[in-house]
Amino acid sequence: MFSFQNKDFHVGILGGGQLGRMLIQSGIDLDVSFKVLEPDANAPCSKLIEKFTVGSLSDYETVLNFGNSCDIITIEIEHVNVEALLTLNNNGKKVFPYPQTIQLIQDKGLQKQFYKENGIPTAPFQLIEGLESLMNQDLTYPFVHKIRKGGYDGRGVNVIKNQDELKNSFTEPSIIEDFIPFEKEIAVIVARNESGEIKTFPAVEMVFHPTANLVEYLFSPAQISEEIAQKASEIATQIAKKLPLVGILAVEMFLTKDQRLLVNEMAPRPHNSGHQTIEGNLTSQYQQHLRAILNLPLGETDIVLPSAMLNLLGEENHQGEALTIGLKDILAIKGVYPHFYGKKTTKPFRKMGHVTIVDENIESLKEKVNFVKRTLKIISNK
Amino acid sequence: MFSFQNKDFHVGILGGGQLGRMLIQSGIDLDVSFKVLEPDANAPCSKLIEKFTVGSLSDYETVLNFGNSCDIITIEIEHVNVEALLTLNNNGKKVFPYPQTIQLIQDKGLQKQFYKENGIPTAPFQLIEGLESLMNQDLTYPFVHKIRKGGYDGRGVNVIKNQDELKNSFTEPSIIEDFIPFEKEIAVIVARNESGEIKTFPAVEMVFHPTANLVEYLFSPAQISEEIAQKASEIATQIAKKLPLVGILAVEMFLTKDQRLLVNEMAPRPHNSGHQTIEGNLTSQYQQHLRAILNLPLGETDIVLPSAMLNLLGEENHQGEALTIGLKDILAIKGVYPHFYGKKTTKPFRKMGHVTIVDENIESLKEKVNFVKRTLKIISNK
Repeated sequence: MFSFQNKDFHVGILGGGQLGRMLIQSGIDLDVSFKVLEPDANAPCSKLIEKFTVGSLSDYETVLNFGNSCDIITIEIEHVNVEALLTLNNNGKKVFPYPQTIQLIQDKGLQKQFYKENGIPTAPFQLIEGLESLMNQDLTYPFVHKIRKGGYDGRGVNVIKNQDELKNSFTEPSIIEDFIPFEKEIAVIVARNESGEIKTFPAVEMVFHPTANLVEYLFSPAQISEEIAQKASEIATQIAKKLPLVGILAVEMFLTKDQRLLVNEMAPRPHNSGHQTIEGNLTSQYQQHLRAILNLPLGETDIVLPSAMLNLLGEENHQGEALTIGLKDILAIKGVYPHFYGKKTTKPFRKMGHVTIVDENIESLKEKVNFVKRTLKIISNK
Repeated sequence: MFSFQNKDFHVGILGGGQLGRMLIQSGIDLDVSFKVLEPDANAPCSKLIEKFTVGSLSDYETVLNFGNSCDIITIEIEHVNVEALLTLNNNGKKVFPYPQTIQLIQDKGLQKQFYKENGIPTAPFQLIEGLESLMNQDLTYPFVHKIRKGGYDGRGVNVIKNQDELKNSFTEPSIIEDFIPFEKEIAVIVARNESGEIKTFPAVEMVFHPTANLVEYLFSPAQISEEIAQKASEIATQIAKKLPLVGILAVEMFLTKDQRLLVNEMAPRPHNSGHQTIEGNLTSQYQQHLRAILNLPLGETDIVLPSAMLNLLGEENHQGEALTIGLKDILAIKGVYPHFYGKKTTKPFRKMGHVTIVDENIESLKEKVNFVKRTLKIISNK
């Protein structure tokens, strides 16, 4: 009889970073076996599983061969060779998210068209062939300029305030978007399993630093009205149905000052905006993704305790062998959960881990966030 | 600078079963590296780490060599070569729990004497050299007959109701104990780190089947008065101080019908009575054990949600390649967390995994326990 617990059954993950690492962690208790394809031999998954293959995610043959050795293929990063996934899928291999969905996500132009065609609210936009065609237009500043392909973690997005800035912006195929002065930025993770069951996680909120224009931490649940929370969940559900989706999808949205929700971006995989679900919710985003792609019933996503999530970035001016300072101090605080990604070398702003903090009391939660933020540091070992 | 996150730093675990497996799982987020020594090449830890050594836990040289390759040594089973651990400890190696504590635990006679000498309440007892010396005594039936060394998971304990039963009991050095008609059996896990910080987990209760005399499931928190809970915590703390202890210690106690607490047994390692802490408490017993032996601040042990824990045993009359049935049905229930130990073959009553169930409502929690109990089964794949 067939079972995903059979020793020969493998879930293949394209990418071996922290998202893959946490996905593997959440599969241990279900007794799921994994294989990973990843270019960096020292990536976070490398010490966690035996079947770790070093190879390019963008090479057709490499992805095809890897996929053929697995029973289900999933991703932890979008920048993969979709042609290989299409071939695998055409040959009957289960690929979740579907290759067509990955293709859509890889291209912000296609993403925006998808929103438009399906009545998903999003900021007005225009597809741009190159910088020249843009120069000839009558433009209203500021606006947002994004490359269609290859952006990641903030790279590939510019806010353009005047023509000089535009001259130095991207020359690749791109989109321009209205600049949205938003009140909050929120995210909803939605899951859909192969049978079509759909569940959303309660919305989380990116909390910005009061003076610097930076996401300081993430807060769950988002401090928004029940009505807006409901609306956000409906939008994410609508997207999951239209894509179609198998797996999880993180949907980032702006809540505008006039209380409209506009979808900004999405990612069909575990996402930075869902880390805190490990401690804060009944089911984690990682467990939910596994359940979805293995076609198991989805877990309930209720919040157990309010939580906050801080990314742990390599300190500026520190490069080399990583050293954690302040760990004992933060572990002495109730409800603080550090997650290190096993990266042995640090560099400025490298994501070295994250910390989840839970607390019934919102004010005390915020105080703990500030304490952890100024106490826990990754420096280089000199 | 020294750190347990250095790639060359290893925590060595004697034993590679499910307790070691969950200990390793809880170390991933702290970025701790482990080595395991275990006689069974297919044990639950075997797929989880690279540095898995197949070897005897009772052989002096094997344990000594393994220990010398580690920075801290701990156990997940008491039946190990203590002489090797004493040598390692004398040579300056950190061994937690201390070898002297393991020695005490290995011998139920020494354990009982320890309780007596330190004013820890326990059932009256007598050390017995052999069956013959027992036969010549004037005995009151029923009483409990236990072998001093080598008992495990119920083996090595007989309730003796008459002289015929006594004739067929153990001939090894043993103890006899008054038979205690108890109201409840509870357990408290206590942790002490190297710096001397001590914390206890809220007591849990073994719930017995109404007709069969069997532990049906474990319930957290124990349904006992605040006063008894406090007393149980004090007893565990007293033991942790007297042993002395570094690591965690599970203390099983009887609550007698006249509301006295008597210590039955203890184990200086993660324990079956603490599995539910993974989901049910702010800190798990595994995380707490790691924090204690790494001399990190201990975590708070507050209950997040009431929980129950069911052992998942191999079905009777089933032997061979394991197959799980009913998994989808139980995953459809809110707050149900199966933990499979990665054992690919089953046999009757083999511990194949456990299930934790959380629910705010006690009645609904009990209903879920019954549903999981009759639904989830491990059979052989035919």
